[in-house]
Amino acid sequence: MRQILVIGAGKSTSVLINYLLEKSYSEDLFLTIGDLDVHQAEKLCNGHSRCKALKLDVFNKESREQAIQKADIVISMLPARFHIEAAKDCIKFKKSLVTASYVSKEMKALDKEVKENGLVFMNEIGVDPGIDHMSAMQVIDRIRAKGGKMLLFESFTGGLVAPQSDTNLWNYKFTWNPRNVVVAGQGGVAEFIQEGKYKYIPYHRLFRRTEFLHVEGYGKFEGYANRNSLDYRSIYGLEDILTLYRGTIRRVGFSRAWNMFVQLGMTDDTYQLQNTKNMSYRQFVNSFLPYSPTDSIELKLRHNLKIDQDDIMWDKLVELDIFNDEKTIGIENATPAEALQKILMEKWTLDEDDKDMIVMYHKFGYELDGERKQIDSSMVLIGENQTSTAMAKTVGLPVAIATLAILNKKITTPGVQIPITKEVYEPILKELETFGIVFKEKETEYLGYNPFGEVGN
Amino acid sequence: MRQILVIGAGKSTSVLINYLLEKSYSEDLFLTIGDLDVHQAEKLCNGHSRCKALKLDVFNKESREQAIQKADIVISMLPARFHIEAAKDCIKFKKSLVTASYVSKEMKALDKEVKENGLVFMNEIGVDPGIDHMSAMQVIDRIRAKGGKMLLFESFTGGLVAPQSDTNLWNYKFTWNPRNVVVAGQGGVAEFIQEGKYKYIPYHRLFRRTEFLHVEGYGKFEGYANRNSLDYRSIYGLEDILTLYRGTIRRVGFSRAWNMFVQLGMTDDTYQLQNTKNMSYRQFVNSFLPYSPTDSIELKLRHNLKIDQDDIMWDKLVELDIFNDEKTIGIENATPAEALQKILMEKWTLDEDDKDMIVMYHKFGYELDGERKQIDSSMVLIGENQTSTAMAKTVGLPVAIATLAILNKKITTPGVQIPITKEVYEPILKELETFGIVFKEKETEYLGYNPFGEVGN
Repeated sequence: MRQILVIGAGKSTSVLINYLLEKSYSEDLFLTIGDLDVHQAEKLCNGHSRCKALKLDVFNKESREQAIQKADIVISMLPARFHIEAAKDCIKFKKSLVTASYVSKEMKALDKEVKENGLVFMNEIGVDPGIDHMSAMQVIDRIRAKGGKMLLFESFTGGLVAPQSDTNLWNYKFTWNPRNVVVAGQGGVAEFIQEGKYKYIPYHRLFRRTEFLHVEGYGKFEGYANRNSLDYRSIYGLEDILTLYRGTIRRVGFSRAWNMFVQLGMTDDTYQLQNTKNMSYRQFVNSFLPYSPTDSIELKLRHNLKIDQDDIMWDKLVELDIFNDEKTIGIENATPAEALQKILMEKWTLDEDDKDMIVMYHKFGYELDGERKQIDSSMVLIGENQTSTAMAKTVGLPVAIATLAILNKKITTPGVQIPITKEVYEPILKELETFGIVFKEKETEYLGYNPFGEVGN
Repeated sequence: MRQILVIGAGKSTSVLINYLLEKSYSEDLFLTIGDLDVHQAEKLCNGHSRCKALKLDVFNKESREQAIQKADIVISMLPARFHIEAAKDCIKFKKSLVTASYVSKEMKALDKEVKENGLVFMNEIGVDPGIDHMSAMQVIDRIRAKGGKMLLFESFTGGLVAPQSDTNLWNYKFTWNPRNVVVAGQGGVAEFIQEGKYKYIPYHRLFRRTEFLHVEGYGKFEGYANRNSLDYRSIYGLEDILTLYRGTIRRVGFSRAWNMFVQLGMTDDTYQLQNTKNMSYRQFVNSFLPYSPTDSIELKLRHNLKIDQDDIMWDKLVELDIFNDEKTIGIENATPAEALQKILMEKWTLDEDDKDMIVMYHKFGYELDGERKQIDSSMVLIGENQTSTAMAKTVGLPVAIATLAILNKKITTPGVQIPITKEVYEPILKELETFGIVFKEKETEYLGYNPFGEVGN
């Protein structure tokens, strides 16, 4: 039997583990799930004869080395910063490694050794990063093979609530780590390039510079810019491209409403508020508004954010119950972002029968035989239930498929890598289609920012 | 002769040095001015027989120790982060020390040793910090002596251009380090307390939450909040005060206009723009605006900031020539803040015969015998010329006066300290009056944020 070690048994790993267990007889696999919380690992094994739960502390060298030594391949589903020690052991014991995380500097530094040992260290093979890389490179490579020259690449991904479970005015619920949603866009300017012009959006304007997207059958969405668009020039080999933009998808109107929190200062995670343990939601709101001896907090907020009395923005705030004087933040020394997260989790947590949805949208603009063209490619996946969420499937399946492909020597090129080569993306995308992860393409005239090629700015 | 060592011969030290040289015979003083740039030090000595220029590198232990050992007292006018080595030598050789900088953690840690050696390390004795401390504590101590209870303390300071030299639409020119003006308010939330309620203003809203001030004979000003108001509770012994607010003074309309730069992202100092060496002012502006194939940069900016065609804000921008397509930033890898500073320095640098102005304004609200009262205290000083600027006088004179007072054993309480005790502020404020640095007081009914004591929010 071939031994697969999965380190980290978070809830999101169930899809990944079920995929491998289902193939455990036909592919002759045995899974060891290592986690600090052995009960969680046992739950994931679910009594399967080809699965074993292991109490594993990744910071304990001995037990980590022992587990890795026994494996034929290692999957690390830990948070990105915890991969590196396992990765070094993988080199020591000559095991390949799969992670869904961004390649860290430390990970990248292992490339030479990984290659020398003929190992595959596959990273960024979840959904974003992951399926975005694969589905984009597939189209880009096809355009290039035809002799086309890439002019524009835009790519958007969003984890959202499925239409059938979309029951609030924000058209949003938390389908992944809420903290990441609250602090999204912070920590650096959003930098990208449009028609050859570098553009910069500061954080406090990010949610007012959205783009619209239309996905057939699912209606209109909006996207706000990610920070790191320009990194993708070298990653995808798009050095001379005129337009490069990556963004996050939300339902239309979310960003304009979210901007209220940004403007008030409620998303700040860099300092602690005073007395948050017993601070009411209402006091939380008031701490960002000027003092008044007479005016209500409601009117101060309306005035501060210039919200007309019939503006839907107002209803969105009221729906969150943020003017409640009795509910308290209940966290010592909370940052504004932590306090806001507390308030939002009360309203934006998925109900037991709520379903989530992943939406991905790429635009490829190119020139071929003197003609400017564009391909739009989009994918929507709705979750099945609380376990097989769209998020867990789009993260877990590519990881599982890649692991098996490496084990079966279908992916062999050694090195620390991400899934941007044909060898990797072709078989994985093909198999993902059998799970309903399907991209629909649409060809149009070039619709970039400057279709007629005049001198814009 | 008593030896005074002045370390750091910046332009701002001329007033300080002239004060001491004028008293050099009557007070039996000899000045040594140490600077890396010995010519600058010589210029300040100006051939005076009681003055010597010394080439001094504060990072060279030997020459630093030698110079300090010979002195009876040391004045450090270096940037704050360079004081600490000189301070340690001062303890070693038992010399008192005077600086105009905020007390750093490292400096504070020397307190015990300074006291054990009976030395006076006087810090924060410039204008802000300095004259603000002294003039505030004088009134606060007087109110307390009468049995009054402090309810409110607000304090504003601004370095501005004098009315006679106020020739641009911004009513502003750089009278001190331009960089500090461009990045003012960054690096943390503005936190203060009003009528017992904690209030927080994020940076991107700072310049839209101003307060108005009226100074007799000088008209209307505005103030925006400083970051560190709450620190002054412990410094001034105002632990239970209901309202505590510190701010920076500008002419009315400056903040609203400055907010345009903040909103665009032009004041950001945390990342570098692409290709700034040859970037035109116009390109700089455009990099913060959405791409358009047809619309002008002017219209995009108007739309982005919602500037009506007859709004004076627009004229303020045009006055700065920021739409110029030929003038270039000319700095490699400039941050937005550095690029903006370049543009502003072209228009906001003082002409040779321009005069500067320092404005300080305190409000003291208190309760005495069941009655709520308020004292407003303000000071305005206009510079004489390019050397004796208001800034150089208000920084240099308190430093010089304090140095002499320590030398003459009029200030004797040992320790690392700031000028908040009667022993220190009384004689210094009195002497400052002879230089025209005079506070005018005005008593009124209590005008705080909640004069009738109702339940505000």
